[in-house]
Amino acid sequence: MKPASRSSQDLSDGNGTTIAQIAVLAGVSVATVSKVVNGRADVAPDTRAAVETIIREHGYRQKKANRATLVELVLHELKGAYAMEIIKGVERVAVEHGLALVVSESEGRHTLGRNWIEAVIARRPTGVVAPVNVPTQSQQEQLHSRGIPIVLVDPMDEPDPALPSVAADSWGGGLAATRHLLRLGHRRIAAITGSSGSMPSRARLDGYRTALETAGIPVDPVLIREGDFHLRDGLAHGQELLRLPDPPTAVFAFNDAQAVGVYQAAHQLGLRIPEDLSVVGFDDLPTATWAIPALTTVHQPLRDMAATATRMLIDIAHGTTTPHRSMFATELITRASTAPPRG
Amino acid sequence: MKPASRSSQDLSDGNGTTIAQIAVLAGVSVATVSKVVNGRADVAPDTRAAVETIIREHGYRQKKANRATLVELVLHELKGAYAMEIIKGVERVAVEHGLALVVSESEGRHTLGRNWIEAVIARRPTGVVAPVNVPTQSQQEQLHSRGIPIVLVDPMDEPDPALPSVAADSWGGGLAATRHLLRLGHRRIAAITGSSGSMPSRARLDGYRTALETAGIPVDPVLIREGDFHLRDGLAHGQELLRLPDPPTAVFAFNDAQAVGVYQAAHQLGLRIPEDLSVVGFDDLPTATWAIPALTTVHQPLRDMAATATRMLIDIAHGTTTPHRSMFATELITRASTAPPRG
Repeated sequence: MKPASRSSQDLSDGNGTTIAQIAVLAGVSVATVSKVVNGRADVAPDTRAAVETIIREHGYRQKKANRATLVELVLHELKGAYAMEIIKGVERVAVEHGLALVVSESEGRHTLGRNWIEAVIARRPTGVVAPVNVPTQSQQEQLHSRGIPIVLVDPMDEPDPALPSVAADSWGGGLAATRHLLRLGHRRIAAITGSSGSMPSRARLDGYRTALETAGIPVDPVLIREGDFHLRDGLAHGQELLRLPDPPTAVFAFNDAQAVGVYQAAHQLGLRIPEDLSVVGFDDLPTATWAIPALTTVHQPLRDMAATATRMLIDIAHGTTTPHRSMFATELITRASTAPPRG
Repeated sequence: MKPASRSSQDLSDGNGTTIAQIAVLAGVSVATVSKVVNGRADVAPDTRAAVETIIREHGYRQKKANRATLVELVLHELKGAYAMEIIKGVERVAVEHGLALVVSESEGRHTLGRNWIEAVIARRPTGVVAPVNVPTQSQQEQLHSRGIPIVLVDPMDEPDPALPSVAADSWGGGLAATRHLLRLGHRRIAAITGSSGSMPSRARLDGYRTALETAGIPVDPVLIREGDFHLRDGLAHGQELLRLPDPPTAVFAFNDAQAVGVYQAAHQLGLRIPEDLSVVGFDDLPTATWAIPALTTVHQPLRDMAATATRMLIDIAHGTTTPHRSMFATELITRASTAPPRG
């Protein structure tokens, strides 16, 4: 019997179909199947797609042997304090477990690029931590067939129930922020949301609405503006809101960056915070304590969430836990940017 | 002849002494030498030290074969916009070259931990990008003997001339910032420096001194305060400076974080920027544009510096360039935090 080549040794099947059977079904060589399974670059796109289809349909599962001691963190953007909190949380747990942290940035705004998945498969990591972005069904299947677990953090979209995730109570945070402003006496409270495709933003908006409705205050659609979690959105919407004939006395920005944008809009119009305008943010990033005045905001424990996601990932990879969802409470941190409205 | 085992195949010598000769010299097995060379954990510290000494003395050099497609970035701290700019710059070039970016944080304040070097060696990266921290002589030798190049970015200390590095013109930046304030008419200009061990901070201070001296203004030691590049240093020194009997009319903070600390000190004392106090920072991080008022600061192209360091690293690894130093110009960006002093 001829000894197995080095690459086919790496590829022995975990359960179900073997590499050889997949090669027969796809009408390609064993070497080609091996390349696809290991995420190598030199395979024609059509061939790759055909092999992936057969893998998906026949339930091939690669053995977990020979995993590199890597954790993959794929960030939606390498920018800002939000991303840094996530990196810090994952790094802490990775180091505890002797794993190196590979950081990459997804291509495009809120989707994971095609090349990304092949690079990840080729690196054979212990697992993948994915904040904000939810991988496509096809990407999930590709990782699953290679035995590479994925855990989501603060996912944009509602994930497949089978996909493990760590999130924060955005609805409760939205409720608490709005009720804080109501208790101070505000009645015209604006909301600058995240993008309408973001479920955490939707949850914050629903919490805002419920706070107003249970206080008997009608929701005024003019005061609800859709942003995209960037400072410039807070600035642009802040300018428009503050120039309304009947402007808001308080603004709830759905993240801290947008809150800082509202600070700038207020500054441009000569309005003082909190005397002329109250502002509440969401996230409680370092910015919130540096801002002048310090920002009242909803604390979302991003670092702990990322650390928990990484621990969950390692436990799933070792088979000591099964995929589940974890939810962190949020907490309103009252600082200097909120006060009762004028007269 | 017995076929070589898998691990000794990975370890054939590049030049000079072989693994077998090192084993004889150290009085240990070939397997033990192999473990040390590859950064494995299960070797007694004394044995490891003995093997490293022989490697150092006898010039063993591991072949560059079987490099993992990784670039290592070891950050002094996983915190703030400075670190994010560096990550972004390295990531951009790593992706262009199909390399994964491994991010780690050095243990301790400005030194690289012992465990760090063994983990790096075990991962067999293409090379190491090290901002701020300069590896010890022993760490440099360990990397060199494994054929792993290192490039420094914005190094704290003056590196060995043989060590490649990318830096910015800190002296010129210090000169430009101070001359800008002098031209506006300021005569009492304070400096909040970085730590005295930081060569970039020393260079900025020398630029500040030269600007004053060439303008015929004596340097007042009361106005020079040593910080450590953190916001809290700007706040604490700002409070002290602004309470002096003859306070400064302008502060040059040696990074943007300290400048924001000075903003807070001014706010606490009811002073307006720039009407009552001018402030200049250094770095030009996103904070500088978000601050109210926007911060006049010295632009240091950290992202481009990190990208250049990564390209240099890859070229050195491929033998297409030799280690050298690269220097970037700095540029004063005038925004809204500087104005002529009050009457």
